[in-house]
Amino acid sequence: MNDLIYILDLAGTLVFAISGASTAAEKKFDLFGATVIAFVTAVGGGTLRDMMIGSTPVGWMKDINYLIVIAVAVLLTSFFRKKILKLRRTLFLFDAIGLGLFTVLGLQKTLALGLSPVVAIIMGTVSAVFGGVTRDIITNEVPLIFRKEIYATACILGGTVFWLLQYSIGTNYWNLSIAILLIIVIRILAVVKKWSLPTIS
Amino acid sequence: MNDLIYILDLAGTLVFAISGASTAAEKKFDLFGATVIAFVTAVGGGTLRDMMIGSTPVGWMKDINYLIVIAVAVLLTSFFRKKILKLRRTLFLFDAIGLGLFTVLGLQKTLALGLSPVVAIIMGTVSAVFGGVTRDIITNEVPLIFRKEIYATACILGGTVFWLLQYSIGTNYWNLSIAILLIIVIRILAVVKKWSLPTIS
Amino acid sequence: MNDLIYILDLAGTLVFAISGASTAAEKKFDLFGATVIAFVTAVGGGTLRDMMIGSTPVGWMKDINYLIVIAVAVLLTSFFRKKILKLRRTLFLFDAIGLGLFTVLGLQKTLALGLSPVVAIIMGTVSAVFGGVTRDIITNEVPLIFRKEIYATACILGGTVFWLLQYSIGTNYWNLSIAILLIIVIRILAVVKKWSLPTIS
Repeated sequence: MNDLIYILDLAGTLVFAISGASTAAEKKFDLFGATVIAFVTAVGGGTLRDMMIGSTPVGWMKDINYLIVIAVAVLLTSFFRKKILKLRRTLFLFDAIGLGLFTVLGLQKTLALGLSPVVAIIMGTVSAVFGGVTRDIITNEVPLIFRKEIYATACILGGTVFWLLQYSIGTNYWNLSIAILLIIVIRILAVVKKWSLPTIS
Repeated sequence: MNDLIYILDLAGTLVFAISGASTAAEKKFDLFGATVIAFVTAVGGGTLRDMMIGSTPVGWMKDINYLIVIAVAVLLTSFFRKKILKLRRTLFLFDAIGLGLFTVLGLQKTLALGLSPVVAIIMGTVSAVFGGVTRDIITNEVPLIFRKEIYATACILGGTVFWLLQYSIGTNYWNLSIAILLIIVIRILAVVKKWSLPTIS
Repeated sequence: MNDLIYILDLAGTLVFAISGASTAAEKKFDLFGATVIAFVTAVGGGTLRDMMIGSTPVGWMKDINYLIVIAVAVLLTSFFRKKILKLRRTLFLFDAIGLGLFTVLGLQKTLALGLSPVVAIIMGTVSAVFGGVTRDIITNEVPLIFRKEIYATACILGGTVFWLLQYSIGTNYWNLSIAILLIIVIRILAVVKKWSLPTIS
């Protein structure tokens, strides 16, 4: 189980780093800027989560593989830049996958510290969205989280389902996979079907 | 005493959450966006304070009542939106009350950790203003803290008075109430009388 | 050795605080705004580093001298404002010196916690650049770190040289001085010679 979580965490880091590096490439940042944005997108959410729950030094500092994965993502994006940018949908897909992975992993880590399920769902969502929010602010985009389509709401729904499954039948591969897929599917459908939430007014 | 502090902390959370939700309503954010902004406005300052002084997991995570109060604030704002927005002064008043409450409570918490009074006054001010600064940045307003009127300066003055009272006569209900009222009154007078600080030039 | 590090840390705080206060003076912020910006520029990087590596309460809280140095910087800037602003190169020089000092000191502190050299170089760079990034965001400048010239790259190069020296010949005054000077010189040459990095495209 822990092996699977570790691999999924590296996978989430990879897809978010590619999403960050591609945004930087699109905006013509230099190589250093692209690396910074890939790094911030990939580790920003987990870093804020770890600082808030008091799990320091924060996660990526304790295992060099996270930094290696980010470097690989920047190199991949440099080499296949044209292909990646042509497939803007791919970019969006990477973001959706990262969203699913990081929500569930962040939720899991917060629960493991003994904090309440509602807090865990919030921290899962923070883990998943904060890197992307920072990427959008740095590159001067309107943060995805505040666009009309459903974004963080997908994390909250998927996180809630994950916790309900885990609470009723215990932690296992199926819960994890179902919740991650659910978030990815909601996010994709939200964009394809143009789902949105009502405004407060 | 601790009961009073707890109730004041929940009251500060409520008024800041209403202030955040109302700003979101004014800017036509969707329900999720409004909840995020209410949440960030209410807990942003305390979260940054707790991360800086090393009191983690941060405060609101350990007691579900903070999240409940924020949910209530969002619901109240949804139902009474028109009335709240009509009374723009009410909004400003909520912000001033939150400012007074959070300055004194943040100062108190920092002192209790054994840090120096100057640091405690700074951290009281950070607790009080950072949530609002984040709200203003997210909703694209010029942060209140950098407008011409006296804002954080009110926190610093009130915080200093609180510490002087506490140092000379010990912690009691009166110190707490006097300092909180002082901050609210300075803030209101600053806006009504258009007080401002000299520029550095 | 520890005395030297302490003095260099206060010196870095002074130059960054002057750089922050001068930017504020140029933009006509009031005295409080100038103090906030001087403070954020001077302690922002170290604060983020300390929160991430879990060294809390963060550094400046434990020693009043940091706050005194910042107050002195604001006063100096107020009195000699015209002279400082006339010499815009001085401002740039202060920023370069702070960059060199804080990179090496942040790196050192992270290594001392037992974290890996790559992480230490990243955290040295974060210590050096985050204060300035926040200053630029607050005062609405394009962050220096994302301008075409070499900025954080100077920190990374100097930090790497520092670690190589320390790893091969142990910590001593020379390593420290060489690495700090190297960062300052790279930064100055980068601006004078208009060095830049290739873009990812």
